Amino acid sequence: MPATPNKQVIFAKIPTTYPVPGEHIKVEDSAIDLDAPLAEGSFILKLLALSVDPYMRGRMRDASIESYLPAFPLGKPMTGDTMNVVVKSNNPNFKEGDLVYGKTACGIFSEYSVITKELEPYFEVRNDPKETGLPITNYVGVLGMPGMTAYVGLLKFGAPKKGETLYVSAASGAVGQLVGQIGKTLGMYVTGSAGSDEKVEYLKEIGFDAAFNYKKVDNLTEKLKEVCPKGIDVYFENVGGQMLEAVIDNMNKFGRIVACGMISQYNREKPEGIHNLMQVVAKRLRIEGFIVGDSVEMIEPFRKDMTQWLLEGKIKYRETVADGIDQTPYALIDVLNGRNFGKQVVNVANL
Amino acid sequence: MPATPNKQVIFAKIPTTYPVPGEHIKVEDSAIDLDAPLAEGSFILKLLALSVDPYMRGRMRDASIESYLPAFPLGKPMTGDTMNVVVKSNNPNFKEGDLVYGKTACGIFSEYSVITKELEPYFEVRNDPKETGLPITNYVGVLGMPGMTAYVGLLKFGAPKKGETLYVSAASGAVGQLVGQIGKTLGMYVTGSAGSDEKVEYLKEIGFDAAFNYKKVDNLTEKLKEVCPKGIDVYFENVGGQMLEAVIDNMNKFGRIVACGMISQYNREKPEGIHNLMQVVAKRLRIEGFIVGDSVEMIEPFRKDMTQWLLEGKIKYRETVADGIDQTPYALIDVLNGRNFGKQVVNVANL
Repeated sequence: MPATPNKQVIFAKIPTTYPVPGEHIKVEDSAIDLDAPLAEGSFILKLLALSVDPYMRGRMRDASIESYLPAFPLGKPMTGDTMNVVVKSNNPNFKEGDLVYGKTACGIFSEYSVITKELEPYFEVRNDPKETGLPITNYVGVLGMPGMTAYVGLLKFGAPKKGETLYVSAASGAVGQLVGQIGKTLGMYVTGSAGSDEKVEYLKEIGFDAAFNYKKVDNLTEKLKEVCPKGIDVYFENVGGQMLEAVIDNMNKFGRIVACGMISQYNREKPEGIHNLMQVVAKRLRIEGFIVGDSVEMIEPFRKDMTQWLLEGKIKYRETVADGIDQTPYALIDVLNGRNFGKQVVNVANL
Repeated sequence: MPATPNKQVIFAKIPTTYPVPGEHIKVEDSAIDLDAPLAEGSFILKLLALSVDPYMRGRMRDASIESYLPAFPLGKPMTGDTMNVVVKSNNPNFKEGDLVYGKTACGIFSEYSVITKELEPYFEVRNDPKETGLPITNYVGVLGMPGMTAYVGLLKFGAPKKGETLYVSAASGAVGQLVGQIGKTLGMYVTGSAGSDEKVEYLKEIGFDAAFNYKKVDNLTEKLKEVCPKGIDVYFENVGGQMLEAVIDNMNKFGRIVACGMISQYNREKPEGIHNLMQVVAKRLRIEGFIVGDSVEMIEPFRKDMTQWLLEGKIKYRETVADGIDQTPYALIDVLNGRNFGKQVVNVANL
């Protein structure tokens, strides 16, 4: 019974603030027998690429607390968006050599995994990279959940109009950089903020009309007034806290705040308070939260549009690729700290 | 030139917290010559009833601060919803004896006022009370702006569904008592809070399924859990602050928060912070502010429905009627303090 080494990213302990590699998230050795017989309907996936995303922090909680995604079980591999290849199969829907997308919250962070019949619905054959020539990592980012989040959030919840001002926080991130570029295709005035001068430079390169480094700003409200001289019509909210307060001060009447995430608050024991919600009434603002998984009707148009935009060069997508599954805990913590640049992914193995 | 005494409610000084009668709001004597010739298009109104409402606090500000309604000019009569009778006219659209509605923000708090041609659009002949037999005061309340606010807010912004749970704060107030009763006509489970046991008793009398005195509650979040065991689907927000926080903790997925006002914050120099907006994402909440004046398309259906509900006894409406224009400053401050019960109006003169 020759065993193949099989490293896994394990959720080891619930963090109270920032998770620490080796304490809350561990990469552990295990082994798998790739020659063992497979039950009917089962297949074995080899992990190629995985996505680390801010929402994962919300799953690192006590399982008794309910939320839109289940908590990670302690002592088990973490899960998320993955791309894989089938190395062995006893399931006619998944053939050896097929590329397989492990959907949000369900792709397993393990070099190899046996997928049984009942888990089949969480996996999808996605051989498109063989045709498009786009990098496999794109399929857990711009063409996966983060890309769809940008698409659904702006188009369905932002009610964007040509000529309006769009402001995106965490704008160089996995989602933000796409929101801004989609906004440009619609003829919006697109503005954004990020946490380094280099990121701000990148935003301008990909077509943002204005961008700033929020870490260098004392008064966010005044800065936004300068950057968005006509006020903000659509705010794509990734950050929360003080940024949200400053945006509310600058929103135009009938403005829309699309709440995608509030990363500045995830690692605080006590979240910051928002003191100016009274403006919601006077300005008739709409603040709406969304989860991309509720909008399955948009999967097909999203994949079609985004693939075309990428192939035509209309949309650019910056990735930071960490090399090897061992890097996963560090990659996730970089994302939570804003130390990554663009979409953070981990390349686990090459095809 | 025989002068008729003409008392006026004057905005005398900008308050920082609660306005004080005689300091920020004064009732002053003046005089009017009712026999003077009237310019073409002008007419003279005698004030019968006026409405004092929480939103008026927002107009008692420095005129340089913009908001959805202009600031009250210092030294001039305050304005709001009024019912009047024409005592003299040189305008064919307004005949002597016509009852006239002074629309929100525009009816003048003066025993008599000369309305010139250019102000005509802010006044509307409304002789309905002569046919319905309903009290004149109803036409600045349940059949005026507060009634329409309840109707538009719940039906247009609340997206209410049969069987859902509705929670209304300031529920015995001018708007709240109507929101709850409209909710009942739709088959909702209707809950509310108010600031005295007597008010709570009244809510139960008019059909609320559950109600509580928020002043007797230590832990609002726990109390709401008890009162709304299935969670809250629609929150009609009149209060803000801690109440809003507790509601967010109890909102169901895809819940709607209709933001009509935040009275608990109007008289604070520093508003309270809301710390749990992160739930907006996870629960996909929608928080939307509205101003009734944006929904003119609903005026006709509102008046038709509400008149019918009142005449059929399906909707009850409690008013507190202060007697005489001198009482106006006290009546407004009672509203801001929650000391009134039901809709606070001032009866200035009888027909």
